[in-house]
Amino acid sequence: MELQTIENAFKDLQDRICKALEISDKKGKFIEDKWEHHSGGGGRTRLIQEGNILEKGGVNFSSVSGPVHERLLQQLNLDPGADLQFNATGVSIVMHPNSPMVPIIHMNVRYFQINNGISWFGGGIDLTPHYVLQEDAVFFHKTMKSACDRHDPVYYPKFKSWADEYFYLPHREETRGVGGIFFDYLKPENGKTKEELFDFVLDVGNQFAPVYTALMEKHREDPYTGVEKAWQYLRRGRYVEFNLVWDRGTKFGLETSGRTESILMSLPPQANWAYDYKPEEGSPEAATLALLKKGIEWV
Amino acid sequence: MELQTIENAFKDLQDRICKALEISDKKGKFIEDKWEHHSGGGGRTRLIQEGNILEKGGVNFSSVSGPVHERLLQQLNLDPGADLQFNATGVSIVMHPNSPMVPIIHMNVRYFQINNGISWFGGGIDLTPHYVLQEDAVFFHKTMKSACDRHDPVYYPKFKSWADEYFYLPHREETRGVGGIFFDYLKPENGKTKEELFDFVLDVGNQFAPVYTALMEKHREDPYTGVEKAWQYLRRGRYVEFNLVWDRGTKFGLETSGRTESILMSLPPQANWAYDYKPEEGSPEAATLALLKKGIEWV
Repeated sequence: MELQTIENAFKDLQDRICKALEISDKKGKFIEDKWEHHSGGGGRTRLIQEGNILEKGGVNFSSVSGPVHERLLQQLNLDPGADLQFNATGVSIVMHPNSPMVPIIHMNVRYFQINNGISWFGGGIDLTPHYVLQEDAVFFHKTMKSACDRHDPVYYPKFKSWADEYFYLPHREETRGVGGIFFDYLKPENGKTKEELFDFVLDVGNQFAPVYTALMEKHREDPYTGVEKAWQYLRRGRYVEFNLVWDRGTKFGLETSGRTESILMSLPPQANWAYDYKPEEGSPEAATLALLKKGIEWV
Repeated sequence: MELQTIENAFKDLQDRICKALEISDKKGKFIEDKWEHHSGGGGRTRLIQEGNILEKGGVNFSSVSGPVHERLLQQLNLDPGADLQFNATGVSIVMHPNSPMVPIIHMNVRYFQINNGISWFGGGIDLTPHYVLQEDAVFFHKTMKSACDRHDPVYYPKFKSWADEYFYLPHREETRGVGGIFFDYLKPENGKTKEELFDFVLDVGNQFAPVYTALMEKHREDPYTGVEKAWQYLRRGRYVEFNLVWDRGTKFGLETSGRTESILMSLPPQANWAYDYKPEEGSPEAATLALLKKGIEWV
């Protein structure tokens, strides 16, 4: 399986997702920025802004190459002096909607190879509602579960727990949202071929547009108040905290001279912080906080 | 020199600074939150909000104790299995003004001791104007230089460079603001006694109120436009990026179960992000960006 095949499929995924989001938004249009990476390759960053539903979002494709960074050599237990080259390609998405009734969503699919023969896939989708609705969380997780189950019955339980652990803010004792699936270092082994793994990864990528446009449609006309809007800004503050403090991908990118503007496209257009804010007991905001826990079985 | 003496002086510093800020603000009043640390000691967090000049700011005193965290043992090259106890006390301040014409400021003075006999002081003050004014930067640095020079002529050049290095965002290739002074691991050695070091540290703390209230007074009536306000929100975004991605104190605090609300009091009430925003050539915003560089000799 050639790198080129994976790249092409990821570019096509980016195209299809952008089109689906534009159709559903009915106003916002993506603008594209093409860029080159300092050590090889580059990307197509696509930004949507000021849509009917989408306030700010990015759908990024990149395929970069270069010498393997010493931090990664260390992480992979490889000889720190090894002179190795990598290729990395992927699609990465975060959407921040105008309405607090529409959830934030994140998706990422990626492929990494090193010229010592090692290669793997990673990815995931997770949903961050400003207000957690049981019905939406169940719909989202069921969709993820059936996509996983088509490939391996162990995937969903394993990758769902992994998402609970990954999308977690220890300093807040909160999950980022209702989770989803997360996986990494998926290698051809245990009877799975690289082609089969890639089928799975693409299948995950293909869940994004139908699942998110369904949630956009469902909540596009929901009314909301100033209180709900203020809560959205505080929740976006938590999103910023997760991405800048805990997200390994963001940290790795920033510390190894990735393209800052593409990496930080995940940040919201506006976020607020209030000292020690605690929602009123019995409020919808308190109900949401109570559901930002690991280990909830939505399906 | 007893820990108690240092604690008392830091509490007194906190009291005096809060009073001076309230007098200068003429509206905002500090509210206090007393809290206890999970392994010993606690703090007095003081918050000012919705003032005439100060939109949100914190002046925190803390004095905490407990077993030395494994991450710190590692950092100090101590035996990873050592059963050591620490005490840490300090005052920490960040102020976010309403007006983009008034700078953000940060100050910290701290003392750390371990029951193996090691102890040291650290601290610093740095200024983050939304619009860099030569005159203000020179005034700020001159004040810091004369405070340093009263104690040791090597302090200012050394600690000024250290601030340039410390308050730097590599992923933006920008300094956080116009810098100031930063120092750490200041130990009794080279003929300096602990009392002399403490005198210096307190002197640094005592610069805060006069220098910042002078800038508050100078700019309190400055008019500003929507364009300048929007720029302030973007600069606050950079402040968030520095604190969450690069500030060692913040990261250490969050990763070792410090009190989240006190640590993240440094975050602004509102911050914005815009994709790849570049100010117009020749604009005041572009002039400010050009001055966010290391190594500018303001004095």
